[in-house]
Amino acid sequence: MRQKLIDPVTLEIRNLATMTSNEFYMDLAMQNARAMKGQTDPNPLVGSVIVNEDRIVGIGTHLKAGEPHAEIHALNMAGDKASGGTIYVTLEPCSHHGKTGPCAVAIKEAGIKKVVIATLDPNPIVSGKGVQILEDAGIEVEIGVRQEEALQMNEVFNKFIVQNKPFITLKAGITLDGKIATHTSDSKWITSEDSRLDVHQIRNENMAILVGVNTVIQDDPALTARIPNGRNPVRIVVDSKLKTPLSAKVVTDQKASTWIFTSQNADIDKEKSFTSNGIKVIRTSGLENVDLNDVVEILGENHISSLLIEGGGNISGSFLENGLIDKLILYLAPKLIGGKDAPTFLEGVGISKMKDAVELSNIELFKIGNDFKLIGYPVYNR
Amino acid sequence: MRQKLIDPVTLEIRNLATMTSNEFYMDLAMQNARAMKGQTDPNPLVGSVIVNEDRIVGIGTHLKAGEPHAEIHALNMAGDKASGGTIYVTLEPCSHHGKTGPCAVAIKEAGIKKVVIATLDPNPIVSGKGVQILEDAGIEVEIGVRQEEALQMNEVFNKFIVQNKPFITLKAGITLDGKIATHTSDSKWITSEDSRLDVHQIRNENMAILVGVNTVIQDDPALTARIPNGRNPVRIVVDSKLKTPLSAKVVTDQKASTWIFTSQNADIDKEKSFTSNGIKVIRTSGLENVDLNDVVEILGENHISSLLIEGGGNISGSFLENGLIDKLILYLAPKLIGGKDAPTFLEGVGISKMKDAVELSNIELFKIGNDFKLIGYPVYNR
Repeated sequence: MRQKLIDPVTLEIRNLATMTSNEFYMDLAMQNARAMKGQTDPNPLVGSVIVNEDRIVGIGTHLKAGEPHAEIHALNMAGDKASGGTIYVTLEPCSHHGKTGPCAVAIKEAGIKKVVIATLDPNPIVSGKGVQILEDAGIEVEIGVRQEEALQMNEVFNKFIVQNKPFITLKAGITLDGKIATHTSDSKWITSEDSRLDVHQIRNENMAILVGVNTVIQDDPALTARIPNGRNPVRIVVDSKLKTPLSAKVVTDQKASTWIFTSQNADIDKEKSFTSNGIKVIRTSGLENVDLNDVVEILGENHISSLLIEGGGNISGSFLENGLIDKLILYLAPKLIGGKDAPTFLEGVGISKMKDAVELSNIELFKIGNDFKLIGYPVYNR
Repeated sequence: MRQKLIDPVTLEIRNLATMTSNEFYMDLAMQNARAMKGQTDPNPLVGSVIVNEDRIVGIGTHLKAGEPHAEIHALNMAGDKASGGTIYVTLEPCSHHGKTGPCAVAIKEAGIKKVVIATLDPNPIVSGKGVQILEDAGIEVEIGVRQEEALQMNEVFNKFIVQNKPFITLKAGITLDGKIATHTSDSKWITSEDSRLDVHQIRNENMAILVGVNTVIQDDPALTARIPNGRNPVRIVVDSKLKTPLSAKVVTDQKASTWIFTSQNADIDKEKSFTSNGIKVIRTSGLENVDLNDVVEILGENHISSLLIEGGGNISGSFLENGLIDKLILYLAPKLIGGKDAPTFLEGVGISKMKDAVELSNIELFKIGNDFKLIGYPVYNR
């Protein structure tokens, strides 16, 4: 369905002759980890490979929270052949007595000679403790092989475990002149069918999806993941004055939970009309306007680890100005519409000086349907 | 300096084993034609290859107006070995007695058995006449090998020879949210140095460059091609009310000709203040506003075969709404600035319905510096 155009990780034509074995084995561990995307929550994706005398003797991956960690599966497969071998693992082996005992201890007891780790545990409370156990046992430890890829693979987990705030993705479908609708508010359709299908997949991967009240009023979106076995995210509406129509799909269709974030001064009777429909209404600290930092904190307290923002331009612009966007996913349709009054995907006041522009890092570009899909990570100058 | 990401023509990994010889030889002819870019005006780029018994016996390219056509150079190189051979030529051999005699006749007289042509002559007055001479002589003729590439190579010539109007390219450097400046009009710099250098190259390739008066007032650009041996295009300002400052670089710096297009009702004294500075002032048919169709026609009458539009948003939007843009070159900087009042590269009224959006065809995408360069051809629904 889609063709990746630039990807330093997977599409680069690798010279297997010069690639170190470390990278080869770690890539295999990473592939098995990634394949579990969506089934390990709230745990991270982790993969592992055990090598002894240049032969792979075990592979493992973490399948599901409550079940064994990746290293344990790999050690089980290797059996006696783990002894004297090298284990590759995409995340630092744990040091805590959880449901399966500390993996670092299991590795030690299996007689492993060397441990190669892509990235340390992001949780500052335990980070480095697994390595300590291994090094104390005289095991050689190498850290950082495919580190960037390993961090990206668990980007949601890594932020949430440290900050207790959701990882925030901004998604928009735009014309090449940056517009999300014509000057008459027509937006059907900017992007091609393949791109719109992809959006349902992205909704499925996020725990909550957020729009501004104007998007609800103008487009009346269902905000559900319309794919087979899709998980519908919690629907979040930012609505300072409680202007969401009681007839809106997000209020009436019962297909997913809807939470409306509002301001201190929002009308109490309006609030009741929503709560009596089963809609959660949450007042943030702002008197007249929703405080977006509050929204993010409250979502984190409610165990929402990932948030997808789907517009419109004012909400997206406010999130950007507050430095809250972690990841950008843009669908660029090869079309032009023009118009001074046609809305762009980032409005609000905006940044004043080009030197203060928010740059994107780690950009990836795909072809999808007739469109381009661009992924990048905003870097804030703070 | 730049890396091409998508190119159906050159970057596709070609399977030489399955590629027909026709395409192999025509590609060689095309490469030699393209290499002369900028030195054949007002003639088109043309390349030729002669093959006899599976060996290349001659290559030719048109070097300069007034000098032999590509086929003549190739025939000269081939000498006796042309007889019985096949000639590949990117453009239909000419039928007219120009400075070098008709190439079709020269091909016939050299004893060529087969002629493979990428594209017919675009000029309806002579199109097909060269082929007629060849077929009348019993020579086999094949037309259409690499036709699309051959048409694109001479896109400027092909339009101008038929319509006597310049081929119009719109160029813009934008942020990923479609902006050409912040809400405070800061635009230095949106794109990276490599992209800005590339723009000077594109200016060098165009005979005229056009901006709106607001761009002159705000940015005071020199609009020159600042590359070694660069040819400066004629500078065109669209200025309905003759508001161009007399102190503007395009008025004072004498580095290239400047033509100001204005309306019927523009002030006559102001006009004199420009003409006394050596600036050409041209009144179009519009009473209050410049008529862009007039501008295009007048440029054609003045032998301007290529026009580059560099903004701002209103001028570019008007050209788009009038269906006047032939080619789009976008530099996409991986940056975000936001802002409802930050200008986009296409403003004006804009298109009302998404179904009427102007789609782009034949899209190519490059990486240049930190930016992406996108080239596409607007397709108007008319």
